[in-house]
Amino acid sequence: MAAILVSSNKSFSGRQYVYKHSSSTLNCEMTFGIYVPEFSGSEKLPVLLYLSGLTCTHANFMEKSGFQQFASKYRFIVVHPDTSPRGVDIEGDSESWDFGKGAGFYLNATEPKWSKNYKMYDYITKELIHQTIPQIAPIDQQKIGIFGHSMGGHGALIIGLRNPEIFKSISAFAPICNPINVPWGKKAFSGYLGSDESTWLQYDASHLLKSYTGPHRHILIDQGEGDNFLAQLQPHTLKSSENAEIQVRLQPEFDHSYYFIASFIEDHFKHHLKNLA
Amino acid sequence: MAAILVSSNKSFSGRQYVYKHSSSTLNCEMTFGIYVPEFSGSEKLPVLLYLSGLTCTHANFMEKSGFQQFASKYRFIVVHPDTSPRGVDIEGDSESWDFGKGAGFYLNATEPKWSKNYKMYDYITKELIHQTIPQIAPIDQQKIGIFGHSMGGHGALIIGLRNPEIFKSISAFAPICNPINVPWGKKAFSGYLGSDESTWLQYDASHLLKSYTGPHRHILIDQGEGDNFLAQLQPHTLKSSENAEIQVRLQPEFDHSYYFIASFIEDHFKHHLKNLA
Repeated sequence: MAAILVSSNKSFSGRQYVYKHSSSTLNCEMTFGIYVPEFSGSEKLPVLLYLSGLTCTHANFMEKSGFQQFASKYRFIVVHPDTSPRGVDIEGDSESWDFGKGAGFYLNATEPKWSKNYKMYDYITKELIHQTIPQIAPIDQQKIGIFGHSMGGHGALIIGLRNPEIFKSISAFAPICNPINVPWGKKAFSGYLGSDESTWLQYDASHLLKSYTGPHRHILIDQGEGDNFLAQLQPHTLKSSENAEIQVRLQPEFDHSYYFIASFIEDHFKHHLKNLA
Repeated sequence: MAAILVSSNKSFSGRQYVYKHSSSTLNCEMTFGIYVPEFSGSEKLPVLLYLSGLTCTHANFMEKSGFQQFASKYRFIVVHPDTSPRGVDIEGDSESWDFGKGAGFYLNATEPKWSKNYKMYDYITKELIHQTIPQIAPIDQQKIGIFGHSMGGHGALIIGLRNPEIFKSISAFAPICNPINVPWGKKAFSGYLGSDESTWLQYDASHLLKSYTGPHRHILIDQGEGDNFLAQLQPHTLKSSENAEIQVRLQPEFDHSYYFIASFIEDHFKHHLKNLA
């Protein structure tokens, strides 16, 4: 079903839009944001997909990162979806902030209770970027990058590494790097995927890097040294492999907030511009 | 009483702080934000005071404008207070979004019901900038500018024009320019000041401009042409006078939101930098 426009605000050279649509992957109505800079009639523009962290909706990045300035300057369409299915109520989906609503972890759930709706991996990699967005904005399918923050940084890494034919550039702010070994990831993966931990590996960035054989990637990661969640994030577990070069920049004093993201987001636009050129 | 630190986040070169303090002017506890860029030991920095619009707190500008990037780049301390007294409950202060809480209109109320607390004019011009802020940040008292949005644009204009010895640079986003003649202003001024309209004139920018005899001011105003509140704002009523040159820039398609403010805020920092030099 076609996406329905919820709001439109002029911002820098272009417009910040919010849409809702009925997702056939998630079996519910979803809201997402998209910024489109000024463009000429037949032009196709590169796209960045931004994945948000725990508790966020499409709105946090839109309101707090200041990204529109750089999407306008460097001429990117930017798509920023929600972090879980919404508008369906499943017992246990609202009891904690790190599981269920606002905490989809960008995977395809296999446990029966969650598997009808919690398929954010397919939603992002198939429906949103290939079906929904091309109907509303002039995207260049050959120039798609992905980035995100915290749980969304995890999402960007695992989705980018597993789908190099779609996502040709990757970066992250304070990503969850080794979810199979930290409380956030263990809770989410056991809930959505069940107790067989071998099924968890496909969603663990530090594991995926070891076997990555796709085209060469330079992956930029910014991590605040004052981040209270370092024990959940474990950036040291990301090791460069032959085809994937990991650059972790430790930023003194910065925490886990959008003040941190805003301070470095221009560098991420430059990174994707270079890597999608 | 000394201000108490509520939060501190590293942002660009400096830090975004939130403080609360007991205001002797307003007779209640108030929260305000202040951004301080990196500075060397004995340095004094220029200051911008930003006044927010109806319904806002100190937080909207802090979270949505992206101002920290330019406060860091152009090296300004930026102070952004709340829009009304808080933490006191007066009958009728919460019934509408354009009167009472979140709607102090930067005046000194004279009606007995409001006059104990609703003295935002004195709070801004006396207590905050001269007593509270100097205790927590190294401000250069000779380089203070003022700006704001909507009701806060009105505040910036009237406070700046009436106190040229304090505020040496003025700008505004979509200010309420002629409050004595529009519904927002009539409601607020009759409520806070009573029915004698002659007392309203001291808080009307278009009126104050006619008699302004202070040092020369170039006042920058940005106004979105797609702003739904144009009938309340009336930018055409601002006329340049001998000592005050008004520059209204009409911005096609832009609305009344923080997307509009974010799109042009760098120009306002440049304006104040030039006018405070």
